[in-house]
Amino acid sequence: MTDDLARLRSRLEELHGLEAIGMLLAWDQRTVMPGAGSQLRGRHLGLLQRLGHEQLIEPEMGRLLDELAPVADSLDPDSDDAALVRLARRLYDKAVRVPPELTSQMARVAAESAPIWVEAKATSSFARFLPALERNLELRHRYVECFEPREEPYDILLDDFEPEMETAEVRRIFDEIKPHLAALAGEQRDRDVDDSFLAGDYPVERQVALAREVVDLFGTRPDTWRIDPTEHPFAGGAGIDDIRITTHYHPGNLDSFFATMHEYGHGLYEHQIPRRIESLPIGTGASLGLHESQSRLWENLVGRSLPFWRFFYPRLRETFPEQLRGVDLERFYAGINKVQPSLIRIHADEVTYGMHVILRFELEQDMINGRLELRDLPDAWNAKMHEYLGVDVPDDARGVLQDMHWSSGAVGYFSTYLLGTVMSLQIWEKAADDVDGLEELVGRGEFTPLREWLAENVHAHGRKYSPQETLRRATGSTIDARPYVAYLTRKFGAPVAV
Amino acid sequence: MTDDLARLRSRLEELHGLEAIGMLLAWDQRTVMPGAGSQLRGRHLGLLQRLGHEQLIEPEMGRLLDELAPVADSLDPDSDDAALVRLARRLYDKAVRVPPELTSQMARVAAESAPIWVEAKATSSFARFLPALERNLELRHRYVECFEPREEPYDILLDDFEPEMETAEVRRIFDEIKPHLAALAGEQRDRDVDDSFLAGDYPVERQVALAREVVDLFGTRPDTWRIDPTEHPFAGGAGIDDIRITTHYHPGNLDSFFATMHEYGHGLYEHQIPRRIESLPIGTGASLGLHESQSRLWENLVGRSLPFWRFFYPRLRETFPEQLRGVDLERFYAGINKVQPSLIRIHADEVTYGMHVILRFELEQDMINGRLELRDLPDAWNAKMHEYLGVDVPDDARGVLQDMHWSSGAVGYFSTYLLGTVMSLQIWEKAADDVDGLEELVGRGEFTPLREWLAENVHAHGRKYSPQETLRRATGSTIDARPYVAYLTRKFGAPVAV
Repeated sequence: MTDDLARLRSRLEELHGLEAIGMLLAWDQRTVMPGAGSQLRGRHLGLLQRLGHEQLIEPEMGRLLDELAPVADSLDPDSDDAALVRLARRLYDKAVRVPPELTSQMARVAAESAPIWVEAKATSSFARFLPALERNLELRHRYVECFEPREEPYDILLDDFEPEMETAEVRRIFDEIKPHLAALAGEQRDRDVDDSFLAGDYPVERQVALAREVVDLFGTRPDTWRIDPTEHPFAGGAGIDDIRITTHYHPGNLDSFFATMHEYGHGLYEHQIPRRIESLPIGTGASLGLHESQSRLWENLVGRSLPFWRFFYPRLRETFPEQLRGVDLERFYAGINKVQPSLIRIHADEVTYGMHVILRFELEQDMINGRLELRDLPDAWNAKMHEYLGVDVPDDARGVLQDMHWSSGAVGYFSTYLLGTVMSLQIWEKAADDVDGLEELVGRGEFTPLREWLAENVHAHGRKYSPQETLRRATGSTIDARPYVAYLTRKFGAPVAV
Repeated sequence: MTDDLARLRSRLEELHGLEAIGMLLAWDQRTVMPGAGSQLRGRHLGLLQRLGHEQLIEPEMGRLLDELAPVADSLDPDSDDAALVRLARRLYDKAVRVPPELTSQMARVAAESAPIWVEAKATSSFARFLPALERNLELRHRYVECFEPREEPYDILLDDFEPEMETAEVRRIFDEIKPHLAALAGEQRDRDVDDSFLAGDYPVERQVALAREVVDLFGTRPDTWRIDPTEHPFAGGAGIDDIRITTHYHPGNLDSFFATMHEYGHGLYEHQIPRRIESLPIGTGASLGLHESQSRLWENLVGRSLPFWRFFYPRLRETFPEQLRGVDLERFYAGINKVQPSLIRIHADEVTYGMHVILRFELEQDMINGRLELRDLPDAWNAKMHEYLGVDVPDDARGVLQDMHWSSGAVGYFSTYLLGTVMSLQIWEKAADDVDGLEELVGRGEFTPLREWLAENVHAHGRKYSPQETLRRATGSTIDARPYVAYLTRKFGAPVAV
């Protein structure tokens, strides 16, 4: 039986290794690969995915899992081995239901749709994009049919991004949040906050140095991280000692700085996975939502907080003395926290961001449930933008075509952005309870206690438990919107001020 | 039967894909990977190698090859499919003889020896390196024993680097070359050539721009190449549209420029493999020796030639006006072609370079045949350096420990450097016969005809044939030292002059 366990571990190490190599190839593609290499890269990524899938669904895997079921029951449920058997069972049970032919078709159509989306967005032509969207959605319907019918078919898609989370639960949380966001956005609407200094001449090389500086300040082990420029920031790498975050430097604003802090949160989660499980599928973040809780924590709860800027603003002004001439801490802090309904999700402030996510979550359910014809999607989008944010969408490029997710068939992904933000508040508040003087430490630029608390209470679990069980172990509660709503109300219910 | 062929192709595509992914990971490790990632990288490279090896030796591969033998006989022997079956048979027959346990032990010991070599070289301590060398050699002996006994066991090692080349043939060629090199080095020894201007203040950023300029001048398809800095220059990449060469920029000399031209030759070989075979094992260079023929052709026969510098020297002086003040073309050309026996192979001139290789080839045979105790290797090295080049070796770091090859057990590799150089002359002379006014074209900076000739006559064959058959198809002859000796005598038999 211990032999069986060793065999399972060795197979799962292989599976995890193939995934890690794929992550590295994806990083390479988006940062350094010569453009003409994409077609070949697609084939190589497809090969790795197929080998991993074959490895997972081999009959030997099923046999091992069956034989190990009683063994796992006899183990400490918190042991790595018990967690590994649980996770493998879950992955196997899902994978064997999906014909490899469908998996590879989904990957192929996603790859083919990416350039179509780019072109459609560039020309603001939803009509150009519609056939690709239809093919992707059709394949998602076939994917859903591989599983036991659910009252909400959307559950099956969501489960791939946020395991064991149900649509009804997300809807309940989002419905609870929505009126608060609307009220807060309304209250802030007429406030006259000056953030003009955030647009200006911010030389890229100084932004690059500053990105490195803030990552070093937050903290990493030596010689383990890279920061590279990309079009769309993301975090990747090959393992706990090879973390690669990316950011986008625009010479006309300071957005890269916030993107860097966001990606730092993602990177730190993988960086602090315990070494003893790093080569196994349990040795990674528990879900997209929990990952986002980490990135939003560093971006917003540290990176848009007053204590942080009390400490760091002098450094920023030293780096950009002309650009920030006459802008004191109070003006700066108000400027970076300005609430203003706008068209683009990734540029949204903390209050209106949630509305962008909720809108997508609602439209996705309508698409999947057949309540919305895909050709009517732009109208539905524009109507909701008007209703939720009071914003009129001038064209589809800045509307329904702005995100790439649907071009790869990733339906169910968006909600994790807001779920993660909600969880970031629960985690932050528990950290503040446990770590003496957390805000004072942040205000002195001391991040080791926070990093260590996150390592011990969140990162230590890797993917051993479901996301909600991980959250419960970290904070004592599963997902709860109240700390998030309370935080927004505290921060944005009155004029933002020092 | 065509089904079998399709199955074979698909398996071999997978094998080739895994190798290409491994190449990319190796490039990454040597250029951009955070240092702490090496241990994990070793595991990932080991995984890819093991999957490839398992894929190759599966019984299904043997069955397919047996069934396809008569089919292959009925095909045009020049067809891709016939070549693919031939190559697969060769790879399979070698791979099944070696126990996977030995392969993985060889890989592991090589990985463990690399840092030992680094430390031994840094402290110039052969005693520190000796145990690692002994383990590597012991494993090579076990490897040799996996095959039918040969009169010269060294044949078996050589075959991994230069397929179907025999030790006796290499010895015959090198023995033919040796007296000419000795004579030429002797003749040049007392000539007083000034190359002091090659050491100086050559700012790295201008070298970087120049490397890009010369690669663009020689020619590539758009958006397909990268040039990155590394400690030891090499060429890599993931496929014909993703070529990555590296070079080493030293702010105190111009060596990077010649290294770039050298790596361009390697890169161009892979870049010009026909697209229809790029995803198969026949879609790569035929051997290390033929690869070296391409790099040496661009580095020496183009890059150290007078026609090239007639064209390019004005550009170089424009880039480094102070550094080259008062150095006219004649002095520059003489300086970059100065012959001077020296300690280090990779810095050797065209004449003495061969002696460095011959010395290693001779010592390797003595090691493998047990005529030389490994502990006596430094003495044997130093004696030969004195005999062949008149150079006294001051320490092992600049002697027997200078190259990393033996630390990974790569015995048999060195000879391909000189075999390639010899073949570069045969190829160059045939190109000059076929391409009207080749030297004049080079003198006008027009490289398309040369590139196209190489594509059609060398690169087009990929690995469809043995290296010698490839050479015969390109030039009408198998390996022949005479053009090489004649070239060196022409160029270095008299004072090097414009």
